[in-house]
Amino acid sequence: MNSQEITLAIDAMGGDHAPQAVVKGAAIALRLDTDLRLILVGDAGKLRPLLASEGIGDRTRIVHTDAVVASEEIPSQALRSGKNSSMRLALDLVKSGEASAIVSAGNSGALMVKALMVLRQIEGIERPALAAWLPTRQEPCCMLDLGANIDCDATNLVQFAAMGEAFYRVLQGVASPRIGLLNVGIEAQKGSASIREAAAILSDAQLKMNYVGFIEGDAIPEGAVNVVVSDGFSGNVALKTAEGTSRFIGSLIRDAFGASLSARLGYVLARRSFRKLRDTMNPQHYNGAVLLGLNGIVVKSHGSANHEGFASAIKVASDLHRRGFINDLKAGLSRSMAAIEAAQATAQKGQEKE
Amino acid sequence: MNSQEITLAIDAMGGDHAPQAVVKGAAIALRLDTDLRLILVGDAGKLRPLLASEGIGDRTRIVHTDAVVASEEIPSQALRSGKNSSMRLALDLVKSGEASAIVSAGNSGALMVKALMVLRQIEGIERPALAAWLPTRQEPCCMLDLGANIDCDATNLVQFAAMGEAFYRVLQGVASPRIGLLNVGIEAQKGSASIREAAAILSDAQLKMNYVGFIEGDAIPEGAVNVVVSDGFSGNVALKTAEGTSRFIGSLIRDAFGASLSARLGYVLARRSFRKLRDTMNPQHYNGAVLLGLNGIVVKSHGSANHEGFASAIKVASDLHRRGFINDLKAGLSRSMAAIEAAQATAQKGQEKE
Repeated sequence: MNSQEITLAIDAMGGDHAPQAVVKGAAIALRLDTDLRLILVGDAGKLRPLLASEGIGDRTRIVHTDAVVASEEIPSQALRSGKNSSMRLALDLVKSGEASAIVSAGNSGALMVKALMVLRQIEGIERPALAAWLPTRQEPCCMLDLGANIDCDATNLVQFAAMGEAFYRVLQGVASPRIGLLNVGIEAQKGSASIREAAAILSDAQLKMNYVGFIEGDAIPEGAVNVVVSDGFSGNVALKTAEGTSRFIGSLIRDAFGASLSARLGYVLARRSFRKLRDTMNPQHYNGAVLLGLNGIVVKSHGSANHEGFASAIKVASDLHRRGFINDLKAGLSRSMAAIEAAQATAQKGQEKE
Repeated sequence: MNSQEITLAIDAMGGDHAPQAVVKGAAIALRLDTDLRLILVGDAGKLRPLLASEGIGDRTRIVHTDAVVASEEIPSQALRSGKNSSMRLALDLVKSGEASAIVSAGNSGALMVKALMVLRQIEGIERPALAAWLPTRQEPCCMLDLGANIDCDATNLVQFAAMGEAFYRVLQGVASPRIGLLNVGIEAQKGSASIREAAAILSDAQLKMNYVGFIEGDAIPEGAVNVVVSDGFSGNVALKTAEGTSRFIGSLIRDAFGASLSARLGYVLARRSFRKLRDTMNPQHYNGAVLLGLNGIVVKSHGSANHEGFASAIKVASDLHRRGFINDLKAGLSRSMAAIEAAQATAQKGQEKE
């Protein structure tokens, strides 16, 4: 058996274009990675013909279920219902060790709640966070939290920073990524009390973190930092606003090239360079957010991702497993947790003196 | 005397490129609007030669002061210091009625604090909010708050909606603009308690508001609503992320057109349509945020705005004054304030029942 061989659990019924986009995405991933095996959890009657037509029956296995998490389910419902949902069964496969990671394009809130319940947090982590990649003028940056936690205190933000650091290090091979806290200004007095307290802890030399300070929204696409830390509300707003702005300007570019005969000729001449631009900004290439802080690799594909996007999400999951992410994260966290606690004590003493 | 004649107070020393960009911007505004007069508050020794070289000495007046609000002053310092700062004296001119509005590119926090102190809130308004325009696929949308208030409760958000509605109505001539609340999802259970409570009040028919519901960050550039309401933290993050993403893609477009001889020829052919794209996205055209909720028109120019941007900010101030914005806002607010209170009572009753 190849030491690199890896089996992933796929929630085949989650997402707007499931199961078609999921199966087509699985086929792309299997073509690119010959050591990959997939367990597709979902409606066997629907999946079997799709797998056959993609010719991937021999490298996939189906775990049948009729139940699906509805896209509008609220997390508290998701917790009670759906022990047999495709999402839940796929998580069980990770828990039992049959699969090394799960990829789902289903309801984010439900995935968060079920993943927490099945896989549990890594010891010491108060709340898992959703992390994803954004294109920037320099290397892509990783941003977290993107919506798993609406309100965050200083400890949450500091733990997000530690998890984001490990995530960036493992996937990009950068020993000490630059970390920034998202804020409404770069001056020390800006932002909420939680953000200022988190900044005080992150600045502490004991943490040995490459913390560069506050950053504003416009510094994200400039690539000012490698890891952007924020609460889930503003992180989600930043990510979606960036996506929407990209789509908007993309439509303006198409309009501009179609505006006249001369512009259309211009497009023919500039086409190759603009394909590169489109590649850089293509959200499908950045698809695959990761729920960090759990005892297992949980990758969330965008609900509207196409097959290409779903294949990217599968690659995120296999990369994280092959590079030993969970062990690396745990080791990193256990090293930094003591330093965080010491820094917290120092920061609190500082506040009491004031 | 022309009935349209208008005098504005200009903080000539605020902003990164003051006073040069301010005076050049003033010159543009004066050329475009023959009924405009300006009072420039700042260092007469510096201003006089600049006004002379722009040839606008006869339509401007200088109020001399040496004192300037430092760009790094924190609001509590700004409150104590600087009774003679250019910003403060310019606000005094609005208070006394010598000027119909103020335009400043100085420190936002200081402007907020000083404007509140000098001009006071409109009765019933708990907190003023900063509003500005963003380009979208449809007509530009107005967004508030953009950073004046980090934490906002439901009443603040509802008042922002009422102020944004009046702002949009007056400047765009739309009787009943579409209003949306920025959130991390469109489902009713999403977001913080404040946002959900604000949504309940805004949905109340008594308000007669064209409230369309929650919107996510990516719906802003799509032009899904005319007025985007949010707390100042996430509003600021959204605005700046949109600006940064635009700049980033702008740089990718320049790179693409410069990538090869063929692409450069393509640019020559498509140049005219791309100029239009650049115009649509040019942040200088959208410069001029407005502090809503005060007894006077206060326009904040971006600190880094150039002369063209500063001229746009002056135009925002004169448009608001000529269209009777403050009276319109007050009338609109006094009508909706009673409805807001009634809706609040209904919303609270609803919560108690649960």
